[in-house]
Amino acid sequence: MNAHQWTHGLQVGEGFRLADVDPDGTPGYRGDKAEGQADLRTGLAALGELQERLYAQSRAGEAKDAVLLVLQAMDSAGKGGIVKHVVGGVDPQGIVLAAFKAPTAEERAHDFLWRIEPRLPAPGFIGVFDRSHYEDVLIARVRGFAPPEEIERRYAAINDFEARATASGIRIVKVMLHISRDEQKARLMERLDRPDKHWKYNPGDVDERMLWDDYMAAYQTVFERTSTASAPWHVIPANRKWYARLAVQELLLAALEGIDPQWPVADFDVDAEKIRLAAT
Amino acid sequence: MNAHQWTHGLQVGEGFRLADVDPDGTPGYRGDKAEGQADLRTGLAALGELQERLYAQSRAGEAKDAVLLVLQAMDSAGKGGIVKHVVGGVDPQGIVLAAFKAPTAEERAHDFLWRIEPRLPAPGFIGVFDRSHYEDVLIARVRGFAPPEEIERRYAAINDFEARATASGIRIVKVMLHISRDEQKARLMERLDRPDKHWKYNPGDVDERMLWDDYMAAYQTVFERTSTASAPWHVIPANRKWYARLAVQELLLAALEGIDPQWPVADFDVDAEKIRLAAT
Repeated sequence: MNAHQWTHGLQVGEGFRLADVDPDGTPGYRGDKAEGQADLRTGLAALGELQERLYAQSRAGEAKDAVLLVLQAMDSAGKGGIVKHVVGGVDPQGIVLAAFKAPTAEERAHDFLWRIEPRLPAPGFIGVFDRSHYEDVLIARVRGFAPPEEIERRYAAINDFEARATASGIRIVKVMLHISRDEQKARLMERLDRPDKHWKYNPGDVDERMLWDDYMAAYQTVFERTSTASAPWHVIPANRKWYARLAVQELLLAALEGIDPQWPVADFDVDAEKIRLAAT
Repeated sequence: MNAHQWTHGLQVGEGFRLADVDPDGTPGYRGDKAEGQADLRTGLAALGELQERLYAQSRAGEAKDAVLLVLQAMDSAGKGGIVKHVVGGVDPQGIVLAAFKAPTAEERAHDFLWRIEPRLPAPGFIGVFDRSHYEDVLIARVRGFAPPEEIERRYAAINDFEARATASGIRIVKVMLHISRDEQKARLMERLDRPDKHWKYNPGDVDERMLWDDYMAAYQTVFERTSTASAPWHVIPANRKWYARLAVQELLLAALEGIDPQWPVADFDVDAEKIRLAAT
């Protein structure tokens, strides 16, 4: 299919167990950190060109393809770094970023997918969800924000929603960045140690951290219930930031190469336009 | 004030005449292309850090500051390049980009500022308008989409709108990228010569080009009527792309340094949190 076979092992399949994933690992990739960083730089240009082709193709009305990267993770796992270092390499004109915070009162008055639907990327764009509708079956489950039967309903609703988005032309790339409990502790401690990082720290982060096992169980259920053939989950070991970034970039490249967007053919007479322009 | 004095000469003041600006010039900057490109790279990191501080400060509820870059230009003058190479150097999480196309039927049914207001950047963000409410006194005037008295009304409405935005904490950086008629011809011809650029070409571009003098007159009036003390216009010679990018970056840096955002002080007990985190 494409050159990005090494990320296939990150895909959640039958019998997947989150507990078996080593957050320190670099599965599938044979290089070291320096090679990984070099490959990341190389990939940036490829990603940029593929996105431009995707946009050009959609603008010519020839295709409705888009890509949606869904990022989920425990605090400090590196979602922000993915946005900055992977997504940030693409022309901002090609990106639509949606960061989903705790829902507002108005959002809570609606179905949980009400605020998600309008943020789906239009044809030609790479959409990025920094947190997503999965919060509604993760923190909502762990914290009991919704009763069990409602959580149960949501898994099926998510699958229906994503199937519809996929059918409309959106390739959904679902990623959970997986750090270890110890790594999170070190990263949160660093935020406390550095005054220029204090603003990134929230005492609530420790409250969620205390529920680590509950979150891992909630993620395991998410993978079992919502990793579908058209929108599979990928669990990416994220203790090594360089590896996580490279893996996400590879997944995006694979999605775009799967679309294989082509420069559109002009819908005007090129030679006639040259003559018309030359005369001005 | 700051180190970016060299861009002061680009600001539209009393007696400004667009016809006097040389699109080939590099006013105020003493370096050549190679130095300009090196300075652009240096500036990227500075811009990124300032934006992060701005965001941190706003998140702590300490300030309502934001920056809004308004980009206007004739076709092919390099707006897209500014977004890609200047704005693209900043973490996408700190950017809100709005590209204003020809208004939809719904948008036309409202006042011209109706679609603009919701796209103003929230505190902490750098907003970018790729085209803007100024289209409503540029193409709208040249093409007669609105009667003269309505165009006349809009200049004052724009000044009121921008004064209100400024009072709410938004530093508005208004930029017209100024290319020459010959340079536009060369750039449009290149789009026709390269099949991978055909999608960027629109036969309507030549129609607008034929009204060049009318557009220059409309811009001149825009500068006279809407270059205010709090939201002045800047006309940037743009035949040399490297210069235009560097100048816009300098204007953004100056705006952010004018805000001088500080890392917020923690609103929690740092030592107590360290103890609490260590215990987990």
